[in-house]
Amino acid sequence: MRAVVYKRPFEVAVEDVPDPRIEQPNDVIVRIAASAICGSDLHMYEGRTAAKPGLVFGHENLGTVEDVGSGVVSLKVGDRVVMPFNVACGFCKNCVAGYTGFCLTVNPGFAGGAYGYVAMGPYGGGQAEHLRVPFADFNCLKLPPGQERDADYVLLADIFPTGYHGCELAQVSPGETVAVYGAGPVGLMAAYSALIRGAAKVFVVDKVAERLQKAAEIGAIPINFEDADPASQIKDQLGGEGADKGVDAVGYQAQAHQEQREEPAVVLNSLIDAVRATAMIGVPGLYVPTDPGGVDEQAAQGKLQVGFGRLFEKGLRVGTGQCNVKRYNRQLRDLITAGRAKPSFVVSHELPLDQAPQAYQKFDKRVEGYTKVVLKPAA
Amino acid sequence: MRAVVYKRPFEVAVEDVPDPRIEQPNDVIVRIAASAICGSDLHMYEGRTAAKPGLVFGHENLGTVEDVGSGVVSLKVGDRVVMPFNVACGFCKNCVAGYTGFCLTVNPGFAGGAYGYVAMGPYGGGQAEHLRVPFADFNCLKLPPGQERDADYVLLADIFPTGYHGCELAQVSPGETVAVYGAGPVGLMAAYSALIRGAAKVFVVDKVAERLQKAAEIGAIPINFEDADPASQIKDQLGGEGADKGVDAVGYQAQAHQEQREEPAVVLNSLIDAVRATAMIGVPGLYVPTDPGGVDEQAAQGKLQVGFGRLFEKGLRVGTGQCNVKRYNRQLRDLITAGRAKPSFVVSHELPLDQAPQAYQKFDKRVEGYTKVVLKPAA
Amino acid sequence: MRAVVYKRPFEVAVEDVPDPRIEQPNDVIVRIAASAICGSDLHMYEGRTAAKPGLVFGHENLGTVEDVGSGVVSLKVGDRVVMPFNVACGFCKNCVAGYTGFCLTVNPGFAGGAYGYVAMGPYGGGQAEHLRVPFADFNCLKLPPGQERDADYVLLADIFPTGYHGCELAQVSPGETVAVYGAGPVGLMAAYSALIRGAAKVFVVDKVAERLQKAAEIGAIPINFEDADPASQIKDQLGGEGADKGVDAVGYQAQAHQEQREEPAVVLNSLIDAVRATAMIGVPGLYVPTDPGGVDEQAAQGKLQVGFGRLFEKGLRVGTGQCNVKRYNRQLRDLITAGRAKPSFVVSHELPLDQAPQAYQKFDKRVEGYTKVVLKPAA
Amino acid sequence: MRAVVYKRPFEVAVEDVPDPRIEQPNDVIVRIAASAICGSDLHMYEGRTAAKPGLVFGHENLGTVEDVGSGVVSLKVGDRVVMPFNVACGFCKNCVAGYTGFCLTVNPGFAGGAYGYVAMGPYGGGQAEHLRVPFADFNCLKLPPGQERDADYVLLADIFPTGYHGCELAQVSPGETVAVYGAGPVGLMAAYSALIRGAAKVFVVDKVAERLQKAAEIGAIPINFEDADPASQIKDQLGGEGADKGVDAVGYQAQAHQEQREEPAVVLNSLIDAVRATAMIGVPGLYVPTDPGGVDEQAAQGKLQVGFGRLFEKGLRVGTGQCNVKRYNRQLRDLITAGRAKPSFVVSHELPLDQAPQAYQKFDKRVEGYTKVVLKPAA
Repeated sequence: MRAVVYKRPFEVAVEDVPDPRIEQPNDVIVRIAASAICGSDLHMYEGRTAAKPGLVFGHENLGTVEDVGSGVVSLKVGDRVVMPFNVACGFCKNCVAGYTGFCLTVNPGFAGGAYGYVAMGPYGGGQAEHLRVPFADFNCLKLPPGQERDADYVLLADIFPTGYHGCELAQVSPGETVAVYGAGPVGLMAAYSALIRGAAKVFVVDKVAERLQKAAEIGAIPINFEDADPASQIKDQLGGEGADKGVDAVGYQAQAHQEQREEPAVVLNSLIDAVRATAMIGVPGLYVPTDPGGVDEQAAQGKLQVGFGRLFEKGLRVGTGQCNVKRYNRQLRDLITAGRAKPSFVVSHELPLDQAPQAYQKFDKRVEGYTKVVLKPAA
Repeated sequence: MRAVVYKRPFEVAVEDVPDPRIEQPNDVIVRIAASAICGSDLHMYEGRTAAKPGLVFGHENLGTVEDVGSGVVSLKVGDRVVMPFNVACGFCKNCVAGYTGFCLTVNPGFAGGAYGYVAMGPYGGGQAEHLRVPFADFNCLKLPPGQERDADYVLLADIFPTGYHGCELAQVSPGETVAVYGAGPVGLMAAYSALIRGAAKVFVVDKVAERLQKAAEIGAIPINFEDADPASQIKDQLGGEGADKGVDAVGYQAQAHQEQREEPAVVLNSLIDAVRATAMIGVPGLYVPTDPGGVDEQAAQGKLQVGFGRLFEKGLRVGTGQCNVKRYNRQLRDLITAGRAKPSFVVSHELPLDQAPQAYQKFDKRVEGYTKVVLKPAA
Repeated sequence: MRAVVYKRPFEVAVEDVPDPRIEQPNDVIVRIAASAICGSDLHMYEGRTAAKPGLVFGHENLGTVEDVGSGVVSLKVGDRVVMPFNVACGFCKNCVAGYTGFCLTVNPGFAGGAYGYVAMGPYGGGQAEHLRVPFADFNCLKLPPGQERDADYVLLADIFPTGYHGCELAQVSPGETVAVYGAGPVGLMAAYSALIRGAAKVFVVDKVAERLQKAAEIGAIPINFEDADPASQIKDQLGGEGADKGVDAVGYQAQAHQEQREEPAVVLNSLIDAVRATAMIGVPGLYVPTDPGGVDEQAAQGKLQVGFGRLFEKGLRVGTGQCNVKRYNRQLRDLITAGRAKPSFVVSHELPLDQAPQAYQKFDKRVEGYTKVVLKPAA
Repeated sequence: MRAVVYKRPFEVAVEDVPDPRIEQPNDVIVRIAASAICGSDLHMYEGRTAAKPGLVFGHENLGTVEDVGSGVVSLKVGDRVVMPFNVACGFCKNCVAGYTGFCLTVNPGFAGGAYGYVAMGPYGGGQAEHLRVPFADFNCLKLPPGQERDADYVLLADIFPTGYHGCELAQVSPGETVAVYGAGPVGLMAAYSALIRGAAKVFVVDKVAERLQKAAEIGAIPINFEDADPASQIKDQLGGEGADKGVDAVGYQAQAHQEQREEPAVVLNSLIDAVRATAMIGVPGLYVPTDPGGVDEQAAQGKLQVGFGRLFEKGLRVGTGQCNVKRYNRQLRDLITAGRAKPSFVVSHELPLDQAPQAYQKFDKRVEGYTKVVLKPAA
């Protein structure tokens, strides 16, 4: 089959690779109709991870079941499904507790697995014509017939639940004010989720005009951190008080305000300032324990200068970690199906698989409004 | 009246000061029967804060109502009461939400007030014969008659709820394993609370033999961090896996393992290592945003080198902040009254008020088993 | 002052009564700008309670502070405020736990107090020019300046939070399906709240066309129980499965489907049928322990033939009780202020105080679209 | 193999039946070391259900894995395991949400399955030498080596979690007072669980002296309902106030106080009286939607005269339904393993399989202290 294969830093190619097949009784094979490129794919693309050449990318996958293992009971050939980016077993203590992003079974020696991602287990990616899905009864979410909402449903694999997860970690509730840092796809999904959950006011901090414009279009309040200190801007709009809740949708590659350099703790520390005492902060944005490209020796070890004294004084609570997609994907699917959510407003491009190399290049450089690209292998 | 007055670093005196009186309709005056010395009093005693000479210390107070303001409806002269160390109004949005440690009314410009503490509002301390208690209907917890359990009940003002708060922030639940760092009074109360909440195994990390001995006596598992890396010791006892939950009952004056120097993030980072993926960490131990005595420039600003990359990778959640005592004190009182909790096992000394200067001196140096001193002004 | 006074069954009059005054240091006097008539006022109006002639009605009150007791610290003359219908002290164990509808202080011998309501304590009602508000720091919610949103804000006293409370008791969450029984003001507020909380589909059951029309206008799905069994209609629209959650906004005066008689358990039992196994049901609709007008001896004692066997088999959870308004009113106010909620769509009439007698008469008979009447004493 | 087979009302026999075998890739076969007789087995034994002759009883099962299907990944021959009485798939929406007692997969057309139980799906019971366990990775809980605690561990299949479930439904928390109705095995486990969770006072209501004696032995307060109205007795011991929480461990075969007849709502209504306003009531005790032996026509349809008016007035919440064992069994196992729980105090008899007929007979008549019988098929 054809698949997006990692070649070397800043290069992917669409090549022939062996077709996946049923390996275990609980596997299914899915013919991929849509597979999105994720910001976290760029970490590998830029050579900032230990990813080896030959890896097939793609963890945001939607398609049609085309082969079913003998142990699978809830799926049949022809079912349309979307898969969480996390591969999970469904029965270990973390899965049972809802922490499917930290499955203890699928990636021995580590808590958590994923498709097409370095160090996340032996699972091929879905930027390809076919995908093997293990523990398929647990990992497949069925979709209604018809393809007209694929651009919405494919976002159930990762970014819509991940944005929502930020709000869940912060326990965003009706009537609250929320400060979201980052207006990339995850940040926009976090802001969108906060509004779905009934927030009164949602601030979105970024510097890219078109992203801030998107935030405004969904009813959030854009804050350009190049205009002035973002925490001050937010507090000014709240009568001097901080926001009730915060979401960090940026992560460790944060950029210093008004300077062109990475400063990995800048978003966390600004959030600590931007929220009020007793607040909760959700951190779906990625932080890593080892970063070869870190700005200094501490950053390279994932150690950040966090304003913990202030955080404690304000009695803040911070929730972190990758999203347990299965915890939310069914409910978010039902919102899409009912016409009450339409997250595809973040999708900028739907492209055939063979345009993946150019798409990666442009997405990596953020050119031409490449905010979110969905590849259509089987289209 | 006689009261413990701060004179200068490393010196307090028992002196005559003006009697407190009803200032507002919601005040009561309490004759103090017991007022404990807290580890946080030592921050002021050691001159490591901005506390001014003349301050009357004492925020862990128990006594008898002896005068009642015209607006007070639930208290009468003669009622025996214990007060949370937090002064709180009961009606601001933080109090209503249960965050009485972050009251927005009692200490304008800051979230939270306390008795006898620098920067925590204009409230005298209770290491004295009498104490003014504002918003008394809200701040007084009634006690059953009789003085035989005063050494237990006085701990309801701070350390028993504060230890419990660590468990609440970590959501310690029946059957879980818990790693508590610090076996001072708060750490022991955290371990004791974890056991009350049904934990299966509670580890307590310290280096002082008599403290570890106390931990063992209540059914916890002592871990001496001078023997070996404490996180490794805990994981070794759990089949290689980390604890389900963690509590930091040490705070910013943490000592580097196997070295005689402060290293403010060492406990946090060891906890991140000691718990398993998906864990929660409760931090009742104090961290401050400005520390004149900090080991370096960053520590002086309350910035700590936190292993945030690892914390995120494990999907940890961290809850911090001073205890909202009123959230727990009634229930913990009822456990004491029912004979199901007896926290006074941590009390080492009950002394008359005039021995306060020596008690401070010895407690500060941790000599002669001075783990927890209760002063008895009205005894 | 002028006030709405209960005379006898089916008769109220606007008469002169003594002005309220500060009685306790924590009181304020509020000049009433808006006071709504509640469906529960009709229980008294119809003589179906032990209310005595002379009682001043009105528990949904909004106005301006015009006198302040000496113990009050957060309010000043001229502040615009809305009061929960519950009178609450703020410091008893129920208030502290958030159950302000079950205050143990304000109505000795009973859990809970209210303004202008039989058996709910010695508090006059607000369908009058002035109102005494006890424990005013706790019971007043401040409003922004300006009167243009009074018709929205006055609903914060009762029906908006009460509808929301139904959703809170049922823990309505994003993506869920919800069955609301009753499209009176509380039912419409429950449906509106479910949508604010992110429900995917909200069904509203009633038989009155104009109410069902209102439900449709806010995005809910109307179900006319005269057309067919409402539980079956709902399940048919959900592929045969019941709703995730249910809200009973009808109460004990429920009418049998397709018959003109009261059948007090019919809504509960239909809800048990309409929801799926594992569901939660919130019951803000009123049930009473003694009902002189009950259809039979059991009903007169508040005993209902509940299908408890089915309820258990489905593993349902049921939450009941009058709303603890203070738990939600601030957050709901902020949604109104931010323009994200506009509950006044249920208000059918805004009338001067002296039109109260006719308004009661028409509201009681549900004539001429009298769905929700707001009296404007100080207008 | 040998198995306990239902013959007719009041008769079981130990007979040869076909050995179970792997039917699906996710099955395992377990050699049964211990299988307890449950009070709910007596419903079938007494002919009060639609159970057909030939059914093999037994849903509380512990043993050793002896055959493993090709899809099973976490179990191997020789593993010692205990199974929840619920058969569950692990991937349907109810299982994923933790409601494994309401699995939508294993018993089509109904929410929930079980071993050896009428209407709970096609699963043989474990009062036999071998048992087929479907979805084995999900349904087996591994145990430590050694058989010395089998009498404790076998209770993890049902009654220990079921008693705990009553406390979970009532959200029993540290320092609370709890009223448990019923001192049979489930009631004793509920009281034991309440104490594990840190309750301050636990009342246990029954009339059987030896059961009340057991309650006293674990630290609960026995209440004999033949002495006086049990709700009054409890309130008298609480200063006139009701308990914070209640648990109904009796169910529909409740006996009227001081009379020798069934009165199915008597326990519910007494609990409504025995708890205080704002309380929660957990109902693990069984109620059924159709009861051929019901005392009247309403009872036969599972309709009960519930004091819903009082329940509403007090703002109570009621949680019901069979236990989702998997939600608690791992944590409770860890308490047993750590020596912090020893639920086998309720076990009165451990008997070889062939004594099952006599054991059923005596357990049904409650003679000779037959409170809880464990059969040992493979002993």
